[in-house]
Amino acid sequence: MNGWTHPRGVRITEVGPRDGLQNEARPIATDDKVRFVDALSAAGCAEIEVSSFVSPKWVPQLADAEQVFARISRRPGCVYSALVPNLEGLERALAARVDKIAVFTAASETFSRRNTNASIAESLDRIRPVVDGARAARRPIRAYVSCVVRCPYEGPVDGRAVRRVVDSLRGMAVDEIDLGDTIGAAVPDDVDRLCDSLDGALAPSDFVLHLHDTRRTALACALRALQLGVTRFDSSAGGLGGCPFAPGARGNLATEDLCYMLSGCGIETGVDASAIGAAAASVKRTLGDSASR
Amino acid sequence: MNGWTHPRGVRITEVGPRDGLQNEARPIATDDKVRFVDALSAAGCAEIEVSSFVSPKWVPQLADAEQVFARISRRPGCVYSALVPNLEGLERALAARVDKIAVFTAASETFSRRNTNASIAESLDRIRPVVDGARAARRPIRAYVSCVVRCPYEGPVDGRAVRRVVDSLRGMAVDEIDLGDTIGAAVPDDVDRLCDSLDGALAPSDFVLHLHDTRRTALACALRALQLGVTRFDSSAGGLGGCPFAPGARGNLATEDLCYMLSGCGIETGVDASAIGAAAASVKRTLGDSASR
Repeated sequence: MNGWTHPRGVRITEVGPRDGLQNEARPIATDDKVRFVDALSAAGCAEIEVSSFVSPKWVPQLADAEQVFARISRRPGCVYSALVPNLEGLERALAARVDKIAVFTAASETFSRRNTNASIAESLDRIRPVVDGARAARRPIRAYVSCVVRCPYEGPVDGRAVRRVVDSLRGMAVDEIDLGDTIGAAVPDDVDRLCDSLDGALAPSDFVLHLHDTRRTALACALRALQLGVTRFDSSAGGLGGCPFAPGARGNLATEDLCYMLSGCGIETGVDASAIGAAAASVKRTLGDSASR
Repeated sequence: MNGWTHPRGVRITEVGPRDGLQNEARPIATDDKVRFVDALSAAGCAEIEVSSFVSPKWVPQLADAEQVFARISRRPGCVYSALVPNLEGLERALAARVDKIAVFTAASETFSRRNTNASIAESLDRIRPVVDGARAARRPIRAYVSCVVRCPYEGPVDGRAVRRVVDSLRGMAVDEIDLGDTIGAAVPDDVDRLCDSLDGALAPSDFVLHLHDTRRTALACALRALQLGVTRFDSSAGGLGGCPFAPGARGNLATEDLCYMLSGCGIETGVDASAIGAAAASVKRTLGDSASR
């Protein structure tokens, strides 16, 4: 039908319960989070980032990570992951039977300092023992790199900075590298530039792309990424999300939007988009947010 | 930088004052419309669809078309167009010194009947004398084809139906054919299918693409269209819009979103996206709509 190369399938990591809810100032009951996660797994999500084991002081909304993990109904085959900032967080995560450990750093020095109170080098030093510990516990490790396109403080991010961080993470042999356009500034050509800057270090088929939809460009960037060979994406039910430490960041790429586009292009995700939409609508009602996006 | 062919420039027709506002149930003062149009021309729009000369009975919101055209400040070089359904509308439009005449039909029989109370064939019969009259008055003619991807009543629209209508319009030698995804259902592969179905009849470089953003796919479809050779798009400041006769249709592709993506990909539009955003925000304030999209 057309001259583009589409993958047969795409793997989506649903990040709504973590990246979506962490930005919510309004309180959400643990039971509502559990219902949300269970609805997402029932909708066919292959992987769900459930919560975060960062200090409740920093992200109070996710202080109930243990309780959420204890109460969710684990669907066989679904991977339940969580964000882990340090060894203390790793201990909590392992005790909560988290399937996959997500660590995080950034390609922008200023963002790293504001987000984690550490330089990029220091954040990599913090990550290293967590990676070792997770590996010892036989948990796969995802490593997020924030601000791979643009930093809310520094502006455009040099591809060489992204590459340096990626090289460090590859040196730690993490299982998955996740590149984030944290503030949703990317246009399709930025995806090309990102891939170009990683040429020889990390192929498009070897990273996860994490897009935000601040400027409504997320799906267009996902389309370009697909054409370049990316087959793994993060998205958030209902487009929930943003970043508490990234001024101006709005919602994540919405899972149902991504699934709609992929499905119409004959690309399988295994996800029931309407069930995702219903799960998101339910959470938004809980939040008292009757307005659609 | 990348392997995609981008055009150097793209021509945008700003349809907010017509396609955006026609769907508004809330009253808008003529002066506010005039201010909106003037702000859009000041922002660099090459062409603005200002209003509609359909019967006020059908679209009461645009009943003041004459007054709006009389009061706008015409920026030299900017084309001010209007929708015209019949000879009576054409007379009114010419008296109002409209630069360009837009006629309309559809690729779906049911939509045509609901939107214009006429079959496609009847709508083409209505268009013909308008086209002749506009040509006699030396006005360029745009012809809209609604529902080129999907109809809200019939579902998917066959590309052969689009081609038949396009062939009829080419037979009338209209100056511009504008293909509309009226309800915003298209995914990128639909743009390929559309171009395939028009192969040999109408090249991508020879039509205007009119996208709605109901499923947030508009920019991704625009990106695919650019890659296929489309260089002309309609969009609406602030994503205002929808269609009163197309249930479920939400806003148009937003001009500022399109400009942001194009600009980031090095494609010129001549439009100041932030000035467009400000113009849209002002209209939305007038409408009492403080919520962002």
